[in-house]
Amino acid sequence: MSETWLPTLRTATPQDGFDLATKLARIGVKVTQPSAELRDKLRSSYEQDTAQLIASSQVIATHFQTVAAANNYWRE
Amino acid sequence: MSETWLPTLRTATPQDGFDLATKLARIGVKVTQPSAELRDKLRSSYEQDTAQLIASSQVIATHFQTVAAANNYWRE
Amino acid sequence: MSETWLPTLRTATPQDGFDLATKLARIGVKVTQPSAELRDKLRSSYEQDTAQLIASSQVIATHFQTVAAANNYWRE
Amino acid sequence: MSETWLPTLRTATPQDGFDLATKLARIGVKVTQPSAELRDKLRSSYEQDTAQLIASSQVIATHFQTVAAANNYWRE
Amino acid sequence: MSETWLPTLRTATPQDGFDLATKLARIGVKVTQPSAELRDKLRSSYEQDTAQLIASSQVIATHFQTVAAANNYWRE
Amino acid sequence: MSETWLPTLRTATPQDGFDLATKLARIGVKVTQPSAELRDKLRSSYEQDTAQLIASSQVIATHFQTVAAANNYWRE
Repeated sequence: MSETWLPTLRTATPQDGFDLATKLARIGVKVTQPSAELRDKLRSSYEQDTAQLIASSQVIATHFQTVAAANNYWRE
Repeated sequence: MSETWLPTLRTATPQDGFDLATKLARIGVKVTQPSAELRDKLRSSYEQDTAQLIASSQVIATHFQTVAAANNYWRE
Repeated sequence: MSETWLPTLRTATPQDGFDLATKLARIGVKVTQPSAELRDKLRSSYEQDTAQLIASSQVIATHFQTVAAANNYWRE
Repeated sequence: MSETWLPTLRTATPQDGFDLATKLARIGVKVTQPSAELRDKLRSSYEQDTAQLIASSQVIATHFQTVAAANNYWRE
Repeated sequence: MSETWLPTLRTATPQDGFDLATKLARIGVKVTQPSAELRDKLRSSYEQDTAQLIASSQVIATHFQTVAAANNYWRE
Repeated sequence: MSETWLPTLRTATPQDGFDLATKLARIGVKVTQPSAELRDKLRSSYEQDTAQLIASSQVIATHFQTVAAANNYWRE
């Protein structure tokens, strides 16, 4: 992935930050399994496995901590 | 999800912050499995699986760290 | 749960803070599975499953981080 | 557990802090499964299950973060 | 591994930081299983197991927290 | 373990810090399963189980957060 996909951790709103956290979680899967074709094939399995849905939510939560801190929790 | 569902991380009380953390954990599942119908179908399985209940509680705990920090732990 | 169960993250001692972390971990399960009857039924399974006992301990550890920070680690 | 078992998070050395983190991880299991007899019986299973040994190490790591921060990383 | 592979946690951009986090996650596997031949053999299994892909993404997320903090979130 | 094995969290470089994090992760296993003989026997199983290799990498990542913070991210 040579293109720029993460120029900054700054976002305008908490909600945009949550979207960014979701993106980071997905990229974390992508770097381990770069084949889009294979990821699509695998998707049907984890989308119906609640344990994996919860695990995905955990990864997002971890990234959201980072993004929220980077934005000083959007306090101003 | 184009509507605004997360305008701020600020809450009036720690308890409201816990509720927000719970909401964030659920949204984290929702972004991975957007079908409400399918989520409802899956719900019956994880609601009776203690391992998954504990994993859900873990996601909430992670988000609660973020929300609590954002509110400076409601110290005032 | 409309009653107030979390008025503050402040506790008098680290030990009280650990108790609060334990409570938060349990509430995190409760919000996902609100039926007390069903939770009681499920309890017998996870209480004898060491993997789940360890996972519960992990959730408590995460909440204890939050509670400890909120109390400035009871340094004074 | 009404006796005082956690008067402070302060320890003299990082190594003592690691011991305290280990203790906290064990107490986290104990509050969920209070029966010493049953815990002893269960011990033989997780002590030979590497996945559970690693999970235990994860809980200790999480508590060690808290204890280390409480001691300002023993910097002085 | 006696060569220098981690001279600094500083990176020019958030994206470079994410790459570093990915590298740290891989090194964490490598120190536990040093055999490159065996890791290559094992790769085919986890690359098609979504639960493990998500777990890998979790490790990256944890390291990204560290790298992001080390770079003060690339705020300037 | 009565000998001193953790006199400080300070390390000269980030790489030394990563090594220390790896050591802490291993000690976390050791305190739960003190038998070196049994740990050696168990090693062959987790070294070929990618899920456990990833879980080990997660523990290292958590400890590396602590060690990195203790060293102020080796910023000087």
